[in-house]
Amino acid sequence: MKVSRHKAKEILYSIAARPEIEEVDVRDSYMRVLAEDILTERDYPDCRKSAVDGYAHIPGHTSYNQIGETGAGRKGAESISGDETVFVMTGGNVPENALAVARVEDCKTENGRVIIPECSTGENINKIAEENSKGDVAATKGSVVTDGLFPVLFYLGRGKVKVYKRPKIGIFVTGDEILEAGEEYRKGFVYNTNKYILESMFRKYRFDFEYAGHVKDSKEDVAEVFEMMSEKYDIIISSGGISMGKYDYVKEVFNTCGYEILFSRTAIKPGSPLMTAKKDGCTFIGMPGYPAAFMTNLVFYIIPFLKKCYGYETFENEEVNVVMGSRTSCKEGRFDINRAVVKPVNGVFTAVDAGTQKTSHFISFARVNALLLLDEETGSLDKGDSAKAIFL
Amino acid sequence: MKVSRHKAKEILYSIAARPEIEEVDVRDSYMRVLAEDILTERDYPDCRKSAVDGYAHIPGHTSYNQIGETGAGRKGAESISGDETVFVMTGGNVPENALAVARVEDCKTENGRVIIPECSTGENINKIAEENSKGDVAATKGSVVTDGLFPVLFYLGRGKVKVYKRPKIGIFVTGDEILEAGEEYRKGFVYNTNKYILESMFRKYRFDFEYAGHVKDSKEDVAEVFEMMSEKYDIIISSGGISMGKYDYVKEVFNTCGYEILFSRTAIKPGSPLMTAKKDGCTFIGMPGYPAAFMTNLVFYIIPFLKKCYGYETFENEEVNVVMGSRTSCKEGRFDINRAVVKPVNGVFTAVDAGTQKTSHFISFARVNALLLLDEETGSLDKGDSAKAIFL
Repeated sequence: MKVSRHKAKEILYSIAARPEIEEVDVRDSYMRVLAEDILTERDYPDCRKSAVDGYAHIPGHTSYNQIGETGAGRKGAESISGDETVFVMTGGNVPENALAVARVEDCKTENGRVIIPECSTGENINKIAEENSKGDVAATKGSVVTDGLFPVLFYLGRGKVKVYKRPKIGIFVTGDEILEAGEEYRKGFVYNTNKYILESMFRKYRFDFEYAGHVKDSKEDVAEVFEMMSEKYDIIISSGGISMGKYDYVKEVFNTCGYEILFSRTAIKPGSPLMTAKKDGCTFIGMPGYPAAFMTNLVFYIIPFLKKCYGYETFENEEVNVVMGSRTSCKEGRFDINRAVVKPVNGVFTAVDAGTQKTSHFISFARVNALLLLDEETGSLDKGDSAKAIFL
Repeated sequence: MKVSRHKAKEILYSIAARPEIEEVDVRDSYMRVLAEDILTERDYPDCRKSAVDGYAHIPGHTSYNQIGETGAGRKGAESISGDETVFVMTGGNVPENALAVARVEDCKTENGRVIIPECSTGENINKIAEENSKGDVAATKGSVVTDGLFPVLFYLGRGKVKVYKRPKIGIFVTGDEILEAGEEYRKGFVYNTNKYILESMFRKYRFDFEYAGHVKDSKEDVAEVFEMMSEKYDIIISSGGISMGKYDYVKEVFNTCGYEILFSRTAIKPGSPLMTAKKDGCTFIGMPGYPAAFMTNLVFYIIPFLKKCYGYETFENEEVNVVMGSRTSCKEGRFDINRAVVKPVNGVFTAVDAGTQKTSHFISFARVNALLLLDEETGSLDKGDSAKAIFL
């Protein structure tokens, strides 16, 4: 059952379950997805504060009598009379009838009085609610608690925050030819790479998974791990075992386990084998074994699908225009995803082809940081041509 | 001692110490920085492998006698004679004198013989060393073990890898007005935000730090924590206490501790107070207290500085051209760093001003994902104008 990339995405997004909600300590909310709108609980600021270190005063005099000093978090004079001034540190409360704060570096003290230059009303005073009013929406449900939003939650004084529960994800790897890191090399074998593609890509998004191990290419072994995992996880991701080879049992096994196959190939290169199946609350994603095909499918299909499962409001890949800094080859009439290194050159994102686009090659991912999306009408591109890219 | 941004960067980069080297298990290398070139230890592949599931054969006949089957990681027939064929799964070794592999879906079996269409020599066979030859450089010293490189290290069979040691970083926060998350709000106070800016930004790069806590605005308290930390850390980062206010003791304290002040302000907005001082092996970075000023200085100066301290070969921020999707205001003759939300619109990175650029405002960072670099000649920009941006 080969489907178009559009159909495959439509199916994947339609089966992404709406996540449940839990409340967590704000300190644990990094990269979680908000399950509530974040409203500001009070005005920001909630009292008039000085924007500078300087003298709060009522303009109209040239010299003033300093009656005190205050700073952020300290209690100072509540009000002043005509020629009185209070020295206020940045962020400190301004006495309620003061009309301006003069920067300390613009003032001087003479004969015990402070000489203050002319100031306009409101100068260097941060007004109540000038940043946000109580009840304003600072962030909406479905937003990810990224680098910027995370400290904002603290700034807003949140102690706890409602977020979406994370799906339980289990992964396993198939293939008799797989060695683990640290094992002695055997000619013709390959080292387990796909588990570590998931580790790095998941770590980036702080997606969780449990690793059920490396399963040998036998129907019995695959069936056993499959039965166990179907009970335990919302999403099962496997690597390898879904092409046409005779030792590829995964397809057969889960067919007999009562899964409905939604599709088994999609029209992309590299990595057309991509199986999706469903049984009750469990989604199975069978990924191709070649690391380059695995990575491409992960970035193009599975990360957006998982984002939706995690509750992301915006989950589709962002496509960015880049300029080709080299030729990149692809077959017209086919949807090719080519690996590239994209860097700004004089500010313009410029893509250089990875040098090889063979499905069996992977080493270029040491440098590759983007995938070029070359649709059916595109064909090969030359230096200077424009292309669409998604960043890893 | 106010310096230009160029001078500040020059000073910071000149004091970034060259890190020492350690060897770690490859599983612990994510986001570490390579202290060695990574050479491929063998040819990739090191034997001829089938690119497809299909029949390995010597072209010239139309029907073949299947003498066996093999797959990746399995031992198959070493050679074949004239009209013999071996079914080889993707990634499996091809018998040494086979000249092509025909895709299984293009072949059929009739009367016990396999009918194979015409193939060209080498078809569907991955040649020895076609990806990389033994000794090729896959990644260079100073590269970060990012999402792509991390799995490549496994692919290359690395068990251990040499990386740069991480500097020991200690941070503390000053300010009497600071509340911690979960504490009850008090009018005029602010919640500790800067610690969590560091947490999220450091987590992204997997920089380490220890938090020495929140220190009250008293000379004695600041001096005590300072003496303790100078012994323990390579880099000390503080928040607050470096402007001109009378309660700002940090400057005074570390001056008497024997630190050489390299600069105390830089010509940028927001956040001109930024103090850098040095004593033996310890660098002190005094950051401004306003979260927006703290974030801006962190992204513009300190992350690149820390990248260099971590051994990054490429450590400066990447500047990207964006198109303004709204007006953004700034003063000509000054270097302003304006907050913006940058998203691709029809593939073109389009920047929308955060709505407020006041130093005392921070809530917009819930959405802000980029900083616009508006130099002295720029002045305000209108919709459609081009600007330089760095992403958070």
